[in-house]
Amino acid sequence: MAATVAERAAPLGQPGEPYAEELLVAVELALACGEAMRQCLESKGGGVSWKDAGGIDPVTETDEANERRVVETLKDRFPSHLVIGEEAAAQAGCIPQLTGAPTWVVDPIDGTTNFVHGLRLSCVSIGLCCGGEPVLGVVYEPYADELFAAVRGQGAFLNGRRLAADGARRLGEAMVLFELGYERSEEGVALILGALQKLLLAGVRATRHVGSAVLSIAWVACGRASAYYTGVSKEGGKPWDYAAAVVIAAEAGAHVCSLDGGRFTIEGKSCLCAASEDLATELAAVVGSS
Amino acid sequence: MAATVAERAAPLGQPGEPYAEELLVAVELALACGEAMRQCLESKGGGVSWKDAGGIDPVTETDEANERRVVETLKDRFPSHLVIGEEAAAQAGCIPQLTGAPTWVVDPIDGTTNFVHGLRLSCVSIGLCCGGEPVLGVVYEPYADELFAAVRGQGAFLNGRRLAADGARRLGEAMVLFELGYERSEEGVALILGALQKLLLAGVRATRHVGSAVLSIAWVACGRASAYYTGVSKEGGKPWDYAAAVVIAAEAGAHVCSLDGGRFTIEGKSCLCAASEDLATELAAVVGSS
Repeated sequence: MAATVAERAAPLGQPGEPYAEELLVAVELALACGEAMRQCLESKGGGVSWKDAGGIDPVTETDEANERRVVETLKDRFPSHLVIGEEAAAQAGCIPQLTGAPTWVVDPIDGTTNFVHGLRLSCVSIGLCCGGEPVLGVVYEPYADELFAAVRGQGAFLNGRRLAADGARRLGEAMVLFELGYERSEEGVALILGALQKLLLAGVRATRHVGSAVLSIAWVACGRASAYYTGVSKEGGKPWDYAAAVVIAAEAGAHVCSLDGGRFTIEGKSCLCAASEDLATELAAVVGSS
Repeated sequence: MAATVAERAAPLGQPGEPYAEELLVAVELALACGEAMRQCLESKGGGVSWKDAGGIDPVTETDEANERRVVETLKDRFPSHLVIGEEAAAQAGCIPQLTGAPTWVVDPIDGTTNFVHGLRLSCVSIGLCCGGEPVLGVVYEPYADELFAAVRGQGAFLNGRRLAADGARRLGEAMVLFELGYERSEEGVALILGALQKLLLAGVRATRHVGSAVLSIAWVACGRASAYYTGVSKEGGKPWDYAAAVVIAAEAGAHVCSLDGGRFTIEGKSCLCAASEDLATELAAVVGSS
């Protein structure tokens, strides 16, 4: 028998805990969106279709259907809350500024290009900000059925198991995830590859580029990677790349800052997330000084 | 009830078909090695241990146990065949040259660094060469239970479904996988990043670096990626990175050549594998001319 939403969310979402109702709704939505993604890839040839075959930031029908599902459900269940999402922002032509009001920041499919190619490196991301700060994050990777969830002050969990970052403290023992993104200008590419060059010459143990900011940060949270960075050039992320994942990372004990080692905000384009503050400092000194 | 080895191998491995017996043994071994990998990661903290905490090419106990299992079983079942594997080559200090004799070329865990970090991007690779050419390939990704298998002239399959490369013909529509590898010298890094820079400025749709040559080539075969290349500098592969995967790719209709567009051999360090010959030609012109 399939687990209930409350069972999947546990030990978070207990009655009376802060954000319990919000968490359960977010988990329910993430599971439903993920199921749609899984079905879409299983029936490939069918579901996945380029809307703009010439572009490099594909939008799929599943992506739009998922965003509709998320936005409508959140507005219905929490009428006083705001919702910020990629598709809506694209239509509006700008990203609404975050206020102190409860605001959901969602990406129904992070890693859309991977998704369109059938590469199973994508996920659902649903975050909630209050007072301008991320307080709740749910990330669902549907292919391996991995549900990451965290609430500020209540810990981070993967399928119910408490998460802890891997504890790496030096680049020489670190698995570092980076982004190349959609940047194709000569100056932008030079900046990004310049940072990568410094990282390799500094003797980093390993680097990977998986094409999903949210999964990358979630993997730092669960110890599969030691660090992630983005924002050297225009490959930097948007609020919906960060809102959910950084709560999970921070609650797992990871250090989250901007690329220069300063204070992180989901509205800043850069992000550096590392298993320890020592590693964050070393990484920022190498890649943040371009 | 678990599927039998013959059921997992189907439609390959039918009695009377060329290499049927070899294929069934390879599938049985790949499934067993993959099960050990899965169990190891599930019990993490236990199974995964660095033998050389200072190095950057980790060898795990599971890797060694898997290689022992593969080598002993192949020698027992096919006493006249030779076996070439990473661990044995490391012990011998050199890679035995491929002859015309039936030779198994195996990597019990490809993507070892990923495996050690708990990153679920690794696989088992078991290939057979006859007359100096790869003729049979089995690749098993245990986390998603994905069994790739091919025999020359009999087609390539993923969990029994026939594979076809994605058909991309231009870089502008291509998802291209690359390697950074263990190269940390100034000249080597400059070569690798120089090729990547040209690729990005040429307007490639997307690039990824997943850290497993075998999985990368298998993903080209099943249409999740459009192309893969390696060998710009010392990040080039070894025979066990190629032997199984290139049979799967070629049988899926992908074009396999060396980085300069010339003839591919598993003993050459470079490899370029693309969904179409057009794409291979365009990619070789961009990254093969460093």
